[in-house]
Amino acid sequence: MQHFLTMSDLRNDEILELLEEADAFSKGAQWKTPEPVFAVNLFYEPSTRTKCSFEVAERRLGLELLPFEVGASSVLKGETLYDTVKTLQSIGVRVVVIRHQEDEYYKKLAGNVELSIVNAGDGSGQHPSQCLLDLLTIQQEFGTFRGLNVCIIGDLVHSRVARSNACALQKLGATVKCSGPVEWYDPTMNIDYISVDQGVREADVVMLLRIQHERHKETAHLSKEEYHHEYGLTVERERMMKPNSIIMHPAPVNRDVEIASCLVECGRSRIFKQMENGVFVRMAILKAILQKEKVVC
Amino acid sequence: MQHFLTMSDLRNDEILELLEEADAFSKGAQWKTPEPVFAVNLFYEPSTRTKCSFEVAERRLGLELLPFEVGASSVLKGETLYDTVKTLQSIGVRVVVIRHQEDEYYKKLAGNVELSIVNAGDGSGQHPSQCLLDLLTIQQEFGTFRGLNVCIIGDLVHSRVARSNACALQKLGATVKCSGPVEWYDPTMNIDYISVDQGVREADVVMLLRIQHERHKETAHLSKEEYHHEYGLTVERERMMKPNSIIMHPAPVNRDVEIASCLVECGRSRIFKQMENGVFVRMAILKAILQKEKVVC
Amino acid sequence: MQHFLTMSDLRNDEILELLEEADAFSKGAQWKTPEPVFAVNLFYEPSTRTKCSFEVAERRLGLELLPFEVGASSVLKGETLYDTVKTLQSIGVRVVVIRHQEDEYYKKLAGNVELSIVNAGDGSGQHPSQCLLDLLTIQQEFGTFRGLNVCIIGDLVHSRVARSNACALQKLGATVKCSGPVEWYDPTMNIDYISVDQGVREADVVMLLRIQHERHKETAHLSKEEYHHEYGLTVERERMMKPNSIIMHPAPVNRDVEIASCLVECGRSRIFKQMENGVFVRMAILKAILQKEKVVC
Repeated sequence: MQHFLTMSDLRNDEILELLEEADAFSKGAQWKTPEPVFAVNLFYEPSTRTKCSFEVAERRLGLELLPFEVGASSVLKGETLYDTVKTLQSIGVRVVVIRHQEDEYYKKLAGNVELSIVNAGDGSGQHPSQCLLDLLTIQQEFGTFRGLNVCIIGDLVHSRVARSNACALQKLGATVKCSGPVEWYDPTMNIDYISVDQGVREADVVMLLRIQHERHKETAHLSKEEYHHEYGLTVERERMMKPNSIIMHPAPVNRDVEIASCLVECGRSRIFKQMENGVFVRMAILKAILQKEKVVC
Repeated sequence: MQHFLTMSDLRNDEILELLEEADAFSKGAQWKTPEPVFAVNLFYEPSTRTKCSFEVAERRLGLELLPFEVGASSVLKGETLYDTVKTLQSIGVRVVVIRHQEDEYYKKLAGNVELSIVNAGDGSGQHPSQCLLDLLTIQQEFGTFRGLNVCIIGDLVHSRVARSNACALQKLGATVKCSGPVEWYDPTMNIDYISVDQGVREADVVMLLRIQHERHKETAHLSKEEYHHEYGLTVERERMMKPNSIIMHPAPVNRDVEIASCLVECGRSRIFKQMENGVFVRMAILKAILQKEKVVC
Repeated sequence: MQHFLTMSDLRNDEILELLEEADAFSKGAQWKTPEPVFAVNLFYEPSTRTKCSFEVAERRLGLELLPFEVGASSVLKGETLYDTVKTLQSIGVRVVVIRHQEDEYYKKLAGNVELSIVNAGDGSGQHPSQCLLDLLTIQQEFGTFRGLNVCIIGDLVHSRVARSNACALQKLGATVKCSGPVEWYDPTMNIDYISVDQGVREADVVMLLRIQHERHKETAHLSKEEYHHEYGLTVERERMMKPNSIIMHPAPVNRDVEIASCLVECGRSRIFKQMENGVFVRMAILKAILQKEKVVC
């Protein structure tokens, strides 16, 4: 593939192939690009996990990374994303990993550039590498997606993770239901909504979403304590979960809001496992790009 | 050479030698520093093209780069440029590429440090590596500078590019004329001024300059549309250009101000070619520094 | 050792062993980590010397560095230091060098993480790698600590350097006295206070401290000129120093405040020598961590 932009672009067999490759990396498989390839991580929004994780993946594959801080670049002089990407292409960059605040920013780029674009999050759109790492974590746990009950709880409307995950999990045979404050229901998702208590009781996977304080124009009507009580994974709710069911969260966690702080590293939690897997799925994505297109310069 | 500071320091034969080396790199020549050399790109002003381009050049030559963000450094504690550079020298850095807002900032440094300084732009002074990449682009196109007509149009007084280029092109035998708003004429340049229409008609090279909004204390008296109409390369003016003549711009471009957006990637445009060449001239500059001085540690 | 947090954690023989290793590096010894190790320099406060110096040390030992700018990270989304460090651990980082504004920030981390933490400065607490480089500089000069007179002058109460150095030098047999404005005396240090003139006359090592303007809630009652006259190392005071005595300063220097500008690079000054030694002690610290714990991944 030339670009990696959305989960909806991928067929089931392509998803499963990426997961297989990622799982192999998680078990110690090695692969290096045979010739030097320059890559840039172009993050217009703050990130720790995704950016560092791509960085580790890129280094493990032997890519050469150019540092790029948007706040010290010509973006300050008004340069557009298109012109920045074309510039990077001109100086020899072959892979650009982009996080940008604009939904579907990649539509202006994809047909007009020769380098490869990896979407690391577009506005309130998708976050497909996060989706893949969530899928890998679930697959490692249960071996399959078919018949699993997944409950996604929280800030659905602002979440790139919810949309990508719900779509992919359904395609792969899981039953996905959502929960959380009614005003955060996402009218674009074709999904059943249930109460948090019911979701927590039924689910094999309880997937919590971060409240994206930075994307809310108005403060929510609930205090943090009230949110935690009404929609969070409290210590009491965790006790209602099925045996062998797991807790996921894309992080960063708002402790004692979406989830009780003491549950972040509890036995059911796969939150730090998800981060580990992030490196492996990103290695798989980049390998697929480097192998199937002649991006090696 | 120990330092690379201004075009006026260089004799014609030195310029031509650097261009020859750069051209060889553009055709695939390789050269690596035999021993580890630490370099720092010290940018006190925002940059995408120049900084990334030096970075690619440095990596291709095998230099070890230390990241340095001015905004996270002791510059915030009031440390002077001199003390910062001496510090970098003390910890083992051998090449510092500097962009700084002060004209001729390097005068305080050049005689007092042992490491090599590469000027990546000083205030409204010079930008000699940009000049070299412009020269390379012109030489690749026309094979010579002698007899060429070059017209530089726009924000002359704030442009480091205009000054370096006019001086070098004249030394190398080209005829250089300038155009643009009268209030942006540069009294320090000994040059003929002509109308934009005449410039566009006569020139082999139409060299547009970016309006440096960030350097203007007062807003110009013209709107963007008015500037484009009066001084920009409009679609109509491009049609008046001579056969085989080319368009250059140091970028970032203000689209539909200095140049019609649809011309940025037109057949005559060498704007992205200039960026490609940036890597090669910077490799040539760094190689000259690394070879002719014992900066290898 | 797993972590390197404070000087008070170290026995004399451990200090001397680190100094011996650092001295060997200063004389050209080489050591490389046999397998790839990812490291991050996590600086929550601005730094040039310490950050770049760790960076050079890390590169010389063959570590793989992940760039991390706090200002472009999830720290902006409210992520705690603990969660950031655990995240880095999850994606494969094995060494984190931390500078943080909170005193003893490492107490929340040290027992709960598997990676190694190197303290590059905690609030107004300690700065143990700076201490080691000061010790190395003194040892290289005098061969011993026993019987030496050291006078530390200046902003004692805000200085991480003063506390670490006084404690270590006394343990190693030196006599340490302090001087400076009475309101900056540090009630937590068990030390004799003397006049600046007496200190300068008696000392083998005159150790000046930077006035930490950024940590003072109120402006000092003295102008810069007054401070220099009353407590600074003026040209006149330097003439009172003993033969073979030396001047040290952790830098960045406030020129003509703590020390006359013309003395910064004078014959007695070891200020840039200290920076050189910074690289070597940091190599020694990191080697000790990489060898004595199985952090190699």
